[in-house]
Amino acid sequence: MESKEEDVNLGANKFSERQPIGTAAQSQDKDYTEPPPEPLFVPSELTSWSFYRAGIAEFIATFLFLYVSILTVMGVNKSDSKCSTVGIQGIAWAFGGMIFALVYCTAGISGGHINPAVTFGLFLARKLSLTRALFYMVMQCLGAICGAGVVKGFGKTLYQTKGGGANVVAHGYTKGDGLGAEIVGTFVLVYTVFSATDAKRSARDSHVPILAPLPIGFAVFLVHLATIPITGTGINPARSLGAAIIYNKDHAWDDHWIFWVGPFIGAALAALYHQVVIRAIPFKSK
Amino acid sequence: MESKEEDVNLGANKFSERQPIGTAAQSQDKDYTEPPPEPLFVPSELTSWSFYRAGIAEFIATFLFLYVSILTVMGVNKSDSKCSTVGIQGIAWAFGGMIFALVYCTAGISGGHINPAVTFGLFLARKLSLTRALFYMVMQCLGAICGAGVVKGFGKTLYQTKGGGANVVAHGYTKGDGLGAEIVGTFVLVYTVFSATDAKRSARDSHVPILAPLPIGFAVFLVHLATIPITGTGINPARSLGAAIIYNKDHAWDDHWIFWVGPFIGAALAALYHQVVIRAIPFKSK
Amino acid sequence: MESKEEDVNLGANKFSERQPIGTAAQSQDKDYTEPPPEPLFVPSELTSWSFYRAGIAEFIATFLFLYVSILTVMGVNKSDSKCSTVGIQGIAWAFGGMIFALVYCTAGISGGHINPAVTFGLFLARKLSLTRALFYMVMQCLGAICGAGVVKGFGKTLYQTKGGGANVVAHGYTKGDGLGAEIVGTFVLVYTVFSATDAKRSARDSHVPILAPLPIGFAVFLVHLATIPITGTGINPARSLGAAIIYNKDHAWDDHWIFWVGPFIGAALAALYHQVVIRAIPFKSK
Amino acid sequence: MESKEEDVNLGANKFSERQPIGTAAQSQDKDYTEPPPEPLFVPSELTSWSFYRAGIAEFIATFLFLYVSILTVMGVNKSDSKCSTVGIQGIAWAFGGMIFALVYCTAGISGGHINPAVTFGLFLARKLSLTRALFYMVMQCLGAICGAGVVKGFGKTLYQTKGGGANVVAHGYTKGDGLGAEIVGTFVLVYTVFSATDAKRSARDSHVPILAPLPIGFAVFLVHLATIPITGTGINPARSLGAAIIYNKDHAWDDHWIFWVGPFIGAALAALYHQVVIRAIPFKSK
Repeated sequence: MESKEEDVNLGANKFSERQPIGTAAQSQDKDYTEPPPEPLFVPSELTSWSFYRAGIAEFIATFLFLYVSILTVMGVNKSDSKCSTVGIQGIAWAFGGMIFALVYCTAGISGGHINPAVTFGLFLARKLSLTRALFYMVMQCLGAICGAGVVKGFGKTLYQTKGGGANVVAHGYTKGDGLGAEIVGTFVLVYTVFSATDAKRSARDSHVPILAPLPIGFAVFLVHLATIPITGTGINPARSLGAAIIYNKDHAWDDHWIFWVGPFIGAALAALYHQVVIRAIPFKSK
Repeated sequence: MESKEEDVNLGANKFSERQPIGTAAQSQDKDYTEPPPEPLFVPSELTSWSFYRAGIAEFIATFLFLYVSILTVMGVNKSDSKCSTVGIQGIAWAFGGMIFALVYCTAGISGGHINPAVTFGLFLARKLSLTRALFYMVMQCLGAICGAGVVKGFGKTLYQTKGGGANVVAHGYTKGDGLGAEIVGTFVLVYTVFSATDAKRSARDSHVPILAPLPIGFAVFLVHLATIPITGTGINPARSLGAAIIYNKDHAWDDHWIFWVGPFIGAALAALYHQVVIRAIPFKSK
Repeated sequence: MESKEEDVNLGANKFSERQPIGTAAQSQDKDYTEPPPEPLFVPSELTSWSFYRAGIAEFIATFLFLYVSILTVMGVNKSDSKCSTVGIQGIAWAFGGMIFALVYCTAGISGGHINPAVTFGLFLARKLSLTRALFYMVMQCLGAICGAGVVKGFGKTLYQTKGGGANVVAHGYTKGDGLGAEIVGTFVLVYTVFSATDAKRSARDSHVPILAPLPIGFAVFLVHLATIPITGTGINPARSLGAAIIYNKDHAWDDHWIFWVGPFIGAALAALYHQVVIRAIPFKSK
Repeated sequence: MESKEEDVNLGANKFSERQPIGTAAQSQDKDYTEPPPEPLFVPSELTSWSFYRAGIAEFIATFLFLYVSILTVMGVNKSDSKCSTVGIQGIAWAFGGMIFALVYCTAGISGGHINPAVTFGLFLARKLSLTRALFYMVMQCLGAICGAGVVKGFGKTLYQTKGGGANVVAHGYTKGDGLGAEIVGTFVLVYTVFSATDAKRSARDSHVPILAPLPIGFAVFLVHLATIPITGTGINPARSLGAAIIYNKDHAWDDHWIFWVGPFIGAALAALYHQVVIRAIPFKSK
């Protein structure tokens, strides 16, 4: 009965515990176990097939992500009348929808990051080892480069004249605007990832994780709706790097640092918010 | 077997009970327990970390809600040709999608209101204390002001000349039209919130709540599709207040009362409909 | 283990039973029970509060359905440039999205029909009594009339000059085209309703019904995408009647029979297909 | 507890097993059973009603798929201004949305293929017999022809002058581009189908399959967003054949082989990737 009641409280206040401030975190009657922090180096990982399989899955997923999304961008940019294309909203669906489908497909194999900023945020929360984090980031960047490269193969002239899907700060905005947009945008994404994969929540509302890939994909879609006019929306350094390398023009490289620094700051802030404010992990007794 | 059969009856009449009118409510063989009404004041709340954490979560969620949605509005308003933007439909997706993602993320922390009208409706149904309701509303309004403020920071001139995302009654509609649109629109939203979080339903169809954030987000999306041409769609006093304070022009303030009175009336009607008609709570024996 | 395996077989052939033709239906080792057909008249229903509550829920749901969807239609029709509105696609979302949200909200109260054609199809399959079916249809039609009436209240001139959301066969199509579009469109909807609420399926894949309101809403959305250019898309006689009564012009009434005959034929074919072909109920031993 | 924890790991690395490379596949402590490969011929199938019922379900589903999607294409092509239609994005929704709804409806009857490429991929992975695979493909093609035929019935002149929804390689792209787009597009779809129906995954995350029809439908939607400008998007030989036969003009037949060879190569690659890389089935001890 109790667990059923828990499901109900979506619109209401969920927690009946009313301990004095700060003690909530120390209560021992939890119905879940926090997974222990992952060590920085896990040597045995390097001899495990599942480790390399996860890297391959990240590579293929990021390849498909860039392929579909950048091809959609090119299809929209190609036409003078946006009305005879899927439009800017269609671009936002392509980015967000692919993240939804690919997180769904790869969650069980690699965790479904498909984004160095997500990997970085989860690494800060010690959800995966440093070795694995670096391996994932390399595979994501390689996949992104290949994906953008295949899109260029469909028409080099078109690709080079229509911006190649590369992220740049739009005319009329400062670099600071671009950096801010990337920071808050990545915060929205990584905050959603943390919420969707939270151990405490999962134990209480065992059904919640089912939908997890959907809000994560929606977060990407929504940030694109808001910030395509500002930076084209990166919030994924692999996506920005892949397009920049294949496009390879100066004005794309000039702003490129924004699409690494912004997402990493946003991911770090989301990790901080979730671990310290929401979960109060630093204040917990061991 | 019985519980499985229950799941099936979506398209059919669900309840086999055929008691004389009014007695249904008194039947004792319920398979769920109605949570008791929350007292008006719960002093112990004020010394609990989860209370303040919930307020912070409401602040951050409403901040992100206004940031993404108002930034999307600005991106659409900025361009003369709506075709080269995400369009009015994209604005509706931004509002509804953010509510979906944020309710998903904060449901387990604060209940995921992100809207003083939702808080008010749930308070009328005694789902949370008066203290908590007021604290939530203050945090929501502060978050909304900060969110709209950050959007203004991306371009003050643009923000001030393009309406700042503030809610006003559109030319060609009376203030009565605007008030009516806000009342019915908020009714749709709060009715969905009540349906999604109903204790009785949850006990019978234990799987139903899984989807809860999705119809709630869709309700917001749908009301925006219908009433953006009339008022820009408020149905959330914090959202209207945040945009109005940052925009701060007379014609926005003139209509501002509509975006508090309308949503609160709509929420009250939804609470009344759900508690009295659907659940018949006043007629239940204690 | 067995039940888990069942979940897996989505992409593969589900049923391992390979009995000679026709015998499958008579096998006794079913893991589900077909609910018995509902009698035509259930006198005790008429003295039960849940019966009237279900009717009120159908009234309110159909009211909100027409209110949001017709208001969206008016917003799009009002503007000369469809690009500065939510567009025809936005209209399709309004109809489909409202059905998703409202089926979700009312499934546990009335079954969530919100459409006389759905009620008719489920009645043919004997899922509800004749009394209840007629009561639902009357309440749905009343709700639809009120919903369209409120929309007209936002601007009578606009409503009357812009078609009032009434269903008519578009210029360039014959009445036969319109009837055919309504038949197949309603078949898609009612076939989805039957699939989503099937007792056999529910018993085998206990998780499938969770998503039920979503494909039902999508079915409505999809049929609108396809047939708005032909008839404006009815597939719901209450929706067509409500708009026709409030609009009340000759050319709307001329075609009005199509929006009752078409949906009822489509619903009957879907009921036939599901009960006879998919479930083989007539060939089952009692 | 263990199984609950499993649910949580969406964003993290899922598998704790850190065996030396290649041994993971031989571990015996699996919590799931791989279904045995389906024989090429299963004579008893041919005398089973469920076999023919599955074929009928594939026929009806592919019929409805072509009817709704090609009718949407015609509605968009008919109008000179795409803004007054559901637009190219609406076409993508029609294809993807119908696959979502129809996979949901027919998954329990036939497995919900609705696409010879999906049938081919699942056959390569030995999920269904050769007899069944061929029967499904024939029924899918017949359904597609009927669906496109009904659309033509709504207006022959329009159908013939506006391309009839047939797949051709667009001006400006080579046949190689078209073939590549079909291969990668079908890979995305069939990879999603394999991920959604994986036995291993299903056993570990018992809730994951619930959403299965949704990412499958989204995969179709997303590939349409990206490749409508190149080939109109086939990734379904039955859909391409149906439209080509009813349209029946030389330039459609010239490219037609692309829409069989491309999808079959893409499906084979996806089957290979899933069975060999992700599941390592060839390396498993019997």
